[in-house]
Amino acid sequence: MDYQGFFKESLARLRDEGNYRVFADLERHLGEFPKATFRKDGAERDVTIWCSNDYLGMGQHPDVLAAMHSALDRSGAGAGGTRNISGTTHDHVELEAELADLHGKEAALLFTSGYVSNWATLGTLGAKIPGLVILSDALNHASMIEGIRHSRARCMVWKHNDLADLEAKLAELPQDTPKLIAFESVYSMDGDIAPIEEICDLADKYNAMTYIDEVHAVGMYGPRGGGVAEREGLMQRIDIIEGTLGKAFGVVGGYITGSAELIDFVRSFASGFIFTTALPPHVAAGAVASIRHLKQSDAERQGQQDRVAQLRARLDEIGIGHIPNPSHIIPVMVGDPVKCKYISDRLMADHGIYIQPINYPTVPKGTERLRITPSPVHTAEDMDRLVGALKSLWGECKLARQPIAAQ
Amino acid sequence: MDYQGFFKESLARLRDEGNYRVFADLERHLGEFPKATFRKDGAERDVTIWCSNDYLGMGQHPDVLAAMHSALDRSGAGAGGTRNISGTTHDHVELEAELADLHGKEAALLFTSGYVSNWATLGTLGAKIPGLVILSDALNHASMIEGIRHSRARCMVWKHNDLADLEAKLAELPQDTPKLIAFESVYSMDGDIAPIEEICDLADKYNAMTYIDEVHAVGMYGPRGGGVAEREGLMQRIDIIEGTLGKAFGVVGGYITGSAELIDFVRSFASGFIFTTALPPHVAAGAVASIRHLKQSDAERQGQQDRVAQLRARLDEIGIGHIPNPSHIIPVMVGDPVKCKYISDRLMADHGIYIQPINYPTVPKGTERLRITPSPVHTAEDMDRLVGALKSLWGECKLARQPIAAQ
Ligand SMILES: Cc1ncc(COP(=O)(O)O)c(C=O)c1O
Ligand SMILES: Cc1ncc(COP(=O)(O)O)c(C=O)c1O
Repeated sequence: MDYQGFFKESLARLRDEGNYRVFADLERHLGEFPKATFRKDGAERDVTIWCSNDYLGMGQHPDVLAAMHSALDRSGAGAGGTRNISGTTHDHVELEAELADLHGKEAALLFTSGYVSNWATLGTLGAKIPGLVILSDALNHASMIEGIRHSRARCMVWKHNDLADLEAKLAELPQDTPKLIAFESVYSMDGDIAPIEEICDLADKYNAMTYIDEVHAVGMYGPRGGGVAEREGLMQRIDIIEGTLGKAFGVVGGYITGSAELIDFVRSFASGFIFTTALPPHVAAGAVASIRHLKQSDAERQGQQDRVAQLRARLDEIGIGHIPNPSHIIPVMVGDPVKCKYISDRLMADHGIYIQPINYPTVPKGTERLRITPSPVHTAEDMDRLVGALKSLWGECKLARQPIAAQ
Repeated sequence: MDYQGFFKESLARLRDEGNYRVFADLERHLGEFPKATFRKDGAERDVTIWCSNDYLGMGQHPDVLAAMHSALDRSGAGAGGTRNISGTTHDHVELEAELADLHGKEAALLFTSGYVSNWATLGTLGAKIPGLVILSDALNHASMIEGIRHSRARCMVWKHNDLADLEAKLAELPQDTPKLIAFESVYSMDGDIAPIEEICDLADKYNAMTYIDEVHAVGMYGPRGGGVAEREGLMQRIDIIEGTLGKAFGVVGGYITGSAELIDFVRSFASGFIFTTALPPHVAAGAVASIRHLKQSDAERQGQQDRVAQLRARLDEIGIGHIPNPSHIIPVMVGDPVKCKYISDRLMADHGIYIQPINYPTVPKGTERLRITPSPVHTAEDMDRLVGALKSLWGECKLARQPIAAQ
């Protein structure tokens, strides 16, 4: 076999389809988010980022930075080991206590990322609980799908947010079959939100455990930033709440929270938790500062919600379609990978606006989009420039000017 | 099903076997490695860590710390997105160039950890190259095993470091079957080293690709810290060199290096690379500083090798058995999980020495051990105290005083 030839051909196919990805080389500037320097072919220019998942700008919050600097000076750059072999520090212990408190659970477990927390937890529960059937929402994130796949447990995929389909699948299974319903709160690409309470009701009825991914909700929903389940008073009804420290909390890392036994079980058996270097202590310290701030401050959440409402209204005014949804995510549909990339390139080149085109495999082919995430650090001026640029590009590209319906 | 009951029982079984893990809550002190504060039940005490994988103390190197502080002040706490969606920063680009240079390869790809780099790369190659057979050393790390398992590719496990067995397995396969030989350079628990050149010869003969995990070697072997393959002049003969930034480099993260096409292929198709928040820019900046330093400084490597030789000689003097090997890892065999934990507890309680017991599942049952990793930051006094403590405990526990042979 000609290995290099195989790689080349696969990449050529991706290019032909318009799905080859070029990463934008950016440098964000502390104190000036969402501004950044964009570098390409040796040239530099200033740009405004409109697609960051540092949703609230916490990555530049003084408390977060101070905690990280101070922990760096106290404990050094890295953890120096896996959690079991010299890598557990006091900062990890504190962070886990903070996370358990955030979600009103007995315990929490920290992973190197949200991806790993989903993959390792679902992978472990699916592999270790004899006969477990995992009922997985059709639009679950790649990390959940891979975890379920890895576990080799039986998986039943239910139609996205469709309670009737979920119940039909639950009813097919014997009452004493162990079951786990896995879903997200805010779905990151369409921005819709799951019917959490009704899912919990079904879980009770059929004796299933519940697993919710609140990656795009923690920090942003609920009075203390505990996510949509907190806002709706449902945290106690969910067995496992999973989240990330890399989006609204502005740092990096992932976690689960749940009962003491469940957390201890995953801690004791999950390969993806056990056999890897722990996050650096200063990262944990930064996350603690961020969570604590967002537990008592509503200003960032309010600022974000205001900006989101403003941009939606401005897009409606000029007839640029976006998927209506109850979250902070504004998906502006284009429906073609080549056009989507072209618009993104022109936004960058002509307007200094960075919005990454979202193409396959992140979304299904044919649903390519610009995913816009307004934040409290975007100014009114930033928004004027964005709306003006989109208006002129929509005209130039002869894109439809009526709302495009959600898929 | 009673889910909580199931978790409780599983944990009880682990406790009965002596394999339940309690993490030591530590706080390392910058400038005073390997010293740390150990916290338990509200009490604090000073301890000396002898089992860190921050092998060279780079986690407290001034260049590394300075780079991290400065990048934090420049770019903030986190990357704010996946690599494709606003999360690639100039620090990531520089780090990947530095890593490619370190291993003499065209390109490199950064992952959130060494675990994820192994899992995602082997998982992707195994799933995407039609008919690929992965020939995996029997003692490969959990992250490689899980990646291969995840890929669903056919896997043939060859006896650890056994060239005859590897060749027999290769010879079984048709010449035109795509093949990948996956192995490590330094095996972390026994400290033995693979016959890299001979493996490459077999790969050539049977047209197989080669994948080496140099996680326990990068930074520490070779004139520029490129690993064992660099030391032996073999880097160009290996298709994929994988490593970590969380051990000798003292920070966190993982990577692969290889041809431009191969790296671009993994970049384009690996779920575990694509769908996760990028490492924070300051982590990348710290890693760049660490790699650059170890490319031109041999002092840390020399210091480590001296300490390792000294401790081996001292253990031999008092007849405490350890697996002889050509690396920096000193495995002192105990062979019983309960005794191993007891010795570790006593070292901590009576002597302020922290060496985590290594029990199942990290090593096979019956091969429980203390894994000691001397570093250039351990002083002669530290070593006197360690040797004295081991001597008295070996007497007290009536452990064998002749060398215990490697399994
Ligand atoms: C729904 C969802 N879950 C999990 C993840 C992974 O989290 P992390 O970025 O912390 O790895 C993401 C995105 O990155 C996501 O969108
Ligand atoms: C051989 C080997 N490969 C990979 C890893 C994972 O690397 P990381 O700690 O960066 O996840 C480890 C240990 O942690 C290891 O021992």
